[in-house]
Amino acid sequence: MIVEAKKARFSEPLRLKSGAVLPEFEIAYETYGTLNAARSNAVLVCHALNASHHVAGSYAGEPKNLGWWDNMVGPGKPLDTERFFVVGNNYIGSCFGSTGPTSVNPATGRPWGADFPVVTVEDWVAAQARLADRLGIERFAAVMGGSLGAMQALQWSLSYPGRVRNAIVIAATPRLSAQNIAFNEVARQAIMTDPEFHGGHYHDKGVLPRRGLRIARMIGHITYLSGDAMMEKFGRALRRAAPGFDFDVDFEVESYLRHQGDKFAEYFDANTYLRITKALDYYDPAAEFGGDLAKAFARAQADFLVISFTSDWRFSSQRSREIVRALLDNRRVVSYLEIDAPQGHDAFLLDDARYHGALRAYFANISL
Amino acid sequence: MIVEAKKARFSEPLRLKSGAVLPEFEIAYETYGTLNAARSNAVLVCHALNASHHVAGSYAGEPKNLGWWDNMVGPGKPLDTERFFVVGNNYIGSCFGSTGPTSVNPATGRPWGADFPVVTVEDWVAAQARLADRLGIERFAAVMGGSLGAMQALQWSLSYPGRVRNAIVIAATPRLSAQNIAFNEVARQAIMTDPEFHGGHYHDKGVLPRRGLRIARMIGHITYLSGDAMMEKFGRALRRAAPGFDFDVDFEVESYLRHQGDKFAEYFDANTYLRITKALDYYDPAAEFGGDLAKAFARAQADFLVISFTSDWRFSSQRSREIVRALLDNRRVVSYLEIDAPQGHDAFLLDDARYHGALRAYFANISL
Repeated sequence: MIVEAKKARFSEPLRLKSGAVLPEFEIAYETYGTLNAARSNAVLVCHALNASHHVAGSYAGEPKNLGWWDNMVGPGKPLDTERFFVVGNNYIGSCFGSTGPTSVNPATGRPWGADFPVVTVEDWVAAQARLADRLGIERFAAVMGGSLGAMQALQWSLSYPGRVRNAIVIAATPRLSAQNIAFNEVARQAIMTDPEFHGGHYHDKGVLPRRGLRIARMIGHITYLSGDAMMEKFGRALRRAAPGFDFDVDFEVESYLRHQGDKFAEYFDANTYLRITKALDYYDPAAEFGGDLAKAFARAQADFLVISFTSDWRFSSQRSREIVRALLDNRRVVSYLEIDAPQGHDAFLLDDARYHGALRAYFANISL
Repeated sequence: MIVEAKKARFSEPLRLKSGAVLPEFEIAYETYGTLNAARSNAVLVCHALNASHHVAGSYAGEPKNLGWWDNMVGPGKPLDTERFFVVGNNYIGSCFGSTGPTSVNPATGRPWGADFPVVTVEDWVAAQARLADRLGIERFAAVMGGSLGAMQALQWSLSYPGRVRNAIVIAATPRLSAQNIAFNEVARQAIMTDPEFHGGHYHDKGVLPRRGLRIARMIGHITYLSGDAMMEKFGRALRRAAPGFDFDVDFEVESYLRHQGDKFAEYFDANTYLRITKALDYYDPAAEFGGDLAKAFARAQADFLVISFTSDWRFSSQRSREIVRALLDNRRVVSYLEIDAPQGHDAFLLDDARYHGALRAYFANISL
C-alpha cells in the first residue's frame, strides 16, 4: 500500500487546557481507504509516545519505511482499509509534522522550543476534532489506540460523546500510577539536567541534549518489555567471550539499550519528550469527579472494546479492568479481552493471532 | 547502644577475580556484643548497595546517626547482641571507609578513582575472610544479609563452606535478570555520560558527576518500592494547588525522587556506584556449572534461612525459590519464609512482626 503524508492547517486559535492559546497549528495525517458516501466508515487511529501519523503502508520509493501499525491496518488486515476509511494523525506537540516545539513560532519567526505550551490528551483530541471537521467526518465508526493512543480513544468518548460510535482502548490506563509518573520524572530529569538542554533552548545554541534523551529512552524500553520477555530475548548472554571487568558492554541487554538510546537521541525532540510525559502524567478523567471514574464515564455514549495483556506491568490488566468496571457501572456496551501474552506493554504492537482475530471480528461487526 | 567504627589494615596483596591485584587494603568495621570464649557466637552482617559497616547503634555524640539495621541488631533485638558477637563491615570498593576508588592508590599517592579495579562479590567475601582471621573467628555462627548483602551470605557458603554454620539470605536472587542488569546499565550510562565524569577522573578535575548519580539513585528508588507501596505513599497527590503546566514539581512522587537523588549525589561516590552495579551484574555462582544452581551449591555445608517478600519485583520470591530448590536438591537444611508484605524490595529493612519474629526464633535456635 503506497501512502502519502498530508498536512492540514488550522488558523483559528486553539485554547489549551492550561489556558495557553495556540494561535494556529498544523496536523500531519495520512488516510487509507475511501470515505463512503454516508461518511460512516471513518476510523481514527491515535499513536503512542514516539510514533506518528504514518500508521500503515509505505511512501513511494521508501518500501522499508512501513507504518508503525502496518500489521493491523491495511487491505485485508484486521482494520481493513477496503471497508474502512482510516485516518492516522500526529498529535500536536510532537516532532513528526504536527505543530510542536520544533515548529516555527509565528510570534518570533524562530522555533518554539521551550516556549511551546504543555499540551494535554484533551488538547490533542480537540485538535483531532478540527481535523475530523476538515475531512467531513461528523462521527467516527471507531477511535482506536494503544497505550497513550488508548487515552486519546477514551478521551474522544468523553470530549465528543456523539462523535464516536466505538472506542477501542488497548493496553490502557485511566490514569498513571505513582510508579508510572516516577519513571517519567526520571526521564525528564535526565533531559533537563543535560548541560546541552539549556532550559529547552538548545536549538538556539546549536546543540541537542542527546545524553538525556538517550537515558530517557533506555528507561522507557525497560518498561515496554516484561521481565520475562527481556530474559527470553537477552538472558544473561554476553557480547564478549568473558566478562571484561570494565565498563564496556558485557551483556547483550546493555548493547540493546545503548543502541535504542543512541538511535532515539538522533531523531526525537527533547522538548516533545518532556511534553508527552507531562500529558501522560496529567491525564485523569476522574479528577474532576473526585476520583470517581464511573462518574467520569457517565457522559460516554460509545460502545467499547478494551484489551489488555497479562504481562504488561507498565499499564497492567488491573488498570484496564478499572476502565471496564466504570463503563459497566454506566451500562455501556463493553467487550473486554485480557490476552495472555508474554511480551509486556509492547504486545499491543505485535501480531498475535488472538489479539488480531478479536479486532478483526470487532470491526467486522461494526455496521456502516 | 554506643558503637565505634574501626579499621583493619591488610598488607598482604589480594588477588581479585578479574586477575587484578589490590596491593593492600583496609576494611572498615564495627562490632557489637562480645566474642565468647569458644568463639562460636560471631555473626557477620553484610550490607547492600549504599549502606555501610554502621549496622546498629550510634556513635558517641551522634544519637541520630543510627545504624542502617538498628531495628534488627542490638540488645534484645532479633539478632541479640547480648548473645551474639556481631560484625558489621563495609565491602571493599565502597566509599564509606574500606579501600575503594576514593582511597589513595599507594602507587601514585593520589585517589584511585577510575583506576580502582572492578571488584566482585567473591572478592568482598575473600576480604571479609581476612577480617574474620584478624578477629580470631574461625567459623561464623551465621553470615547474614539482604539484597546484595544476601549474595555475600550465599557466597560465604560457597567460598568458605567450613566457616559458616548458617547463611541467612534475605530478599535475594542467585543472579540478576536481564531487567535487573538493564536498570543497572541505565544508571551507569547516566553517570558515565555526565560531562563531569571525565572517564572517572573527576577528582583530578575538582568536580563530581552529580547529575548522573542523581538519575542513578532515582532509578534505584523506583525499583526498591513496589508499585502499590508507591501508590499508597504518594498516589497522584500534587505538591501544588493545581497542575502547573510546566516542568517544576507537580506530584509528590516527583518531589520525593528529586530529594532522594539530590541527597545521594552529595555523599555517594560515582566510581563506587559503577563498581557495585557491576558486582551485582557479574554475580552468578551457577555460571561455572553451566547455569546449574544445584551443582553450584553442592559444596555448601551451612544451614540456610531464605526469606523473600511477595511485593518485591526487583528480586522476586520466584528467585528465592530457585535458591531454595537448589539447596534442597543438595539436601541442605533450609527454612524458607515468603512474607506477604506490600513494601517491595525495601521490606527487608523494615520492622515487620512476622519477619523479625522469624529471625528472632531462628537465632534463638542457633546453639553456641
